[in-house]
Amino acid sequence: MTQLEFAKKNRITPQMKKVAKDEGLEPEYICENIKKGRLVIPANPNHRIEKVCGIGEGLRTKVNANIGTSPDSVNIQEELQKLKVAIASGADAVMDLSTGGNLIKIRREILKKSSVPIGTVPIYEAVCNVTKHHRSISKMDEEDLFGAIEAHAKDGVDFVTVHCGVTLESIGRLKKEGRIMDVVSRGGAFLIEWMLTNKRENPLYERFDRLLEIARRYDVVLSLGDGMRPGALADATDRAQVQETILLGELAKTAQEYGVQVMIEGPGHVPINQIEANVILQKRLCHGAPFYVLGPLVTDVAPGYDHITSAIGGAIAAMAGADFLCYVTPSEHLRLPTVADVKEGVIASRIAAHAADIAKGVKGALDWDIKMSVMRKKRDWKGQVELAMDKERPREYRKASKPSEKDVCTMCSTYCSMKAIEKML
Amino acid sequence: MTQLEFAKKNRITPQMKKVAKDEGLEPEYICENIKKGRLVIPANPNHRIEKVCGIGEGLRTKVNANIGTSPDSVNIQEELQKLKVAIASGADAVMDLSTGGNLIKIRREILKKSSVPIGTVPIYEAVCNVTKHHRSISKMDEEDLFGAIEAHAKDGVDFVTVHCGVTLESIGRLKKEGRIMDVVSRGGAFLIEWMLTNKRENPLYERFDRLLEIARRYDVVLSLGDGMRPGALADATDRAQVQETILLGELAKTAQEYGVQVMIEGPGHVPINQIEANVILQKRLCHGAPFYVLGPLVTDVAPGYDHITSAIGGAIAAMAGADFLCYVTPSEHLRLPTVADVKEGVIASRIAAHAADIAKGVKGALDWDIKMSVMRKKRDWKGQVELAMDKERPREYRKASKPSEKDVCTMCSTYCSMKAIEKML
Repeated sequence: MTQLEFAKKNRITPQMKKVAKDEGLEPEYICENIKKGRLVIPANPNHRIEKVCGIGEGLRTKVNANIGTSPDSVNIQEELQKLKVAIASGADAVMDLSTGGNLIKIRREILKKSSVPIGTVPIYEAVCNVTKHHRSISKMDEEDLFGAIEAHAKDGVDFVTVHCGVTLESIGRLKKEGRIMDVVSRGGAFLIEWMLTNKRENPLYERFDRLLEIARRYDVVLSLGDGMRPGALADATDRAQVQETILLGELAKTAQEYGVQVMIEGPGHVPINQIEANVILQKRLCHGAPFYVLGPLVTDVAPGYDHITSAIGGAIAAMAGADFLCYVTPSEHLRLPTVADVKEGVIASRIAAHAADIAKGVKGALDWDIKMSVMRKKRDWKGQVELAMDKERPREYRKASKPSEKDVCTMCSTYCSMKAIEKML
Repeated sequence: MTQLEFAKKNRITPQMKKVAKDEGLEPEYICENIKKGRLVIPANPNHRIEKVCGIGEGLRTKVNANIGTSPDSVNIQEELQKLKVAIASGADAVMDLSTGGNLIKIRREILKKSSVPIGTVPIYEAVCNVTKHHRSISKMDEEDLFGAIEAHAKDGVDFVTVHCGVTLESIGRLKKEGRIMDVVSRGGAFLIEWMLTNKRENPLYERFDRLLEIARRYDVVLSLGDGMRPGALADATDRAQVQETILLGELAKTAQEYGVQVMIEGPGHVPINQIEANVILQKRLCHGAPFYVLGPLVTDVAPGYDHITSAIGGAIAAMAGADFLCYVTPSEHLRLPTVADVKEGVIASRIAAHAADIAKGVKGALDWDIKMSVMRKKRDWKGQVELAMDKERPREYRKASKPSEKDVCTMCSTYCSMKAIEKML
């Protein structure tokens, strides 16, 4: 039985209890909101997860880190290192997006080594299997696709991205609208190539029942992917994107009725003033299903710094109600991320999530900041490092620039305002 | 005559013309808004500025970079290098906040080498002069303070921070309220020490007329400093801060009537959901005077990453109407920034400013993003680098990770969505 099926029977699972404890909430709250489809727990029984996490309304905003090989960069040890660093930096979930090398081996290694839920995009494997025999993507058949999804589920993958909203209808809207960047979702692009070449509907849409059957059997959370997500600010919130969200909302309802947990994926590249509208729209059209956003990136012009463009968008999205932020690294748009990029991306995303949690009044969020401020006021440098989101960098910076008086830093040195005020007030 | 005095006579100055050209607006618009006190041009006639900039309503959001020595770190060549890097990275203005070494020499070198407006905090020099003779700050007299301000003005400083709103009244509110971090403004702390020891009102408030006389003579823009700015999220938007803003609004009006250009400084550390309210409050209480914010930082717990916490806050503040963002570097709260930190800080702040400009509909802002997206769609990598906010990092990342096919990157490699879609649509 899935977490949702248990919730429908008002039965509190060990996973619900863990999430409740982690969030400082009542297990009944977790159960009730899973039942309503407003909260998911990605926890495939075939995967032993140490850090179970809940995603959805009223919970801490969660952060996902994407790792995985590409045909140009296949190094399983490096990917496992990325996994380790992502989790150590505080990622709540990790997605293996590998498209290079032995995909099965990589996935199983990652699942084995991960203490957090693992997500994948099974169509990548289906496509890689077809193309490695020098066949075109259009030759992929339904068995390749659903076979890959089932294989992932069986291996213990906790959530899968499935681009079910890329339909003939949404492609039609896309073509009619005209876009600068067209489709930037890899899964979306694969499906469009398949659909337009074969002149057929998306199997993930047409045979959604088959997908649901697999998802329910393994309690895999369906992350309904946004193949139509904008890849340029100028393309944001257009008819193709909104059409897809309408479809995803309908599918989410069907899935929930069937007992399958669902979340919805969102943009992408969005001007800062359209972000709140995007969240409100998704929450309304998808009846409060958890919202998983990629970024959003608030400008297109800062390659090399897209962890920052995304942290801005992520914070605003999460404040407006997004529940799950997919990190973006400084390497986005330029190369496969390095291990260092992974850390930078996770921290940037966690800053966004935490800033939003303070705004949303998530339990305990502001307390952390208050504790840090008390240490700062006391000029307790060890205490500040201990409380820091990342301990490594403050430690390193302080070591590199030693003040002549121990209780200040080299920025203001003897002219430390806090030291002066302490004497006076 | 000051820019404001010219504007009051409806006379368009060469500086107004330059700003108008730079912004793609009519010189009459610039003149009209300077007259209304909604826009300033920091351009001391004693300083030859290549890149004149306007700050205020309807203009691009501007970015300031703080540089300068501290008693623990006196290296004039390094500070000049920071100046160079800040300007090359796109800072619109630079503040010299030096408190170590030969302050006069450092300031004059920076003024000589800077193509952008230079700001200072003259009280730092007044205090350094007093303390270097081992006298306490309370021994500083009015002549020390106004003498320093006049010396800066004479040297060509374009804008000065003066903490005129730190009054016995606002200190009273501060004490009554109780704060976690009390006062984190250096200038504010100096003044409080002076006022409480001498049991006297702030000379910058009591003798505001004297300040105005100097500011008018040299057309120095007064940046009315926020000595009561919150240094912790929990202290944001409290009575002391709001009291000071009320006072600054009153002083701004007096200054403008006298022909002196004014902007208002703002926080600091602010929860993301209070930022818009802070901007609305300042704009209303200060009758639309330009708003110059430091950050705001949206969480206290990420030392080492405060360029990101500030980029989030800065973007939201600028979207709500803040006109001028003071950058924050990764070293904030930890050490005097390095040259690399300066670059990182400027870029983060420019991302925030530009993202907000798109939202505000600033002329030409989105066009830049559209151009980049077109290059991205074409997979024109040179074109993308040329258009990037920072060209160095994308060039370096791409060089470090060469794809096997030239027209993609190593993230998706042969599975590039844009390449696939190009064939299909």
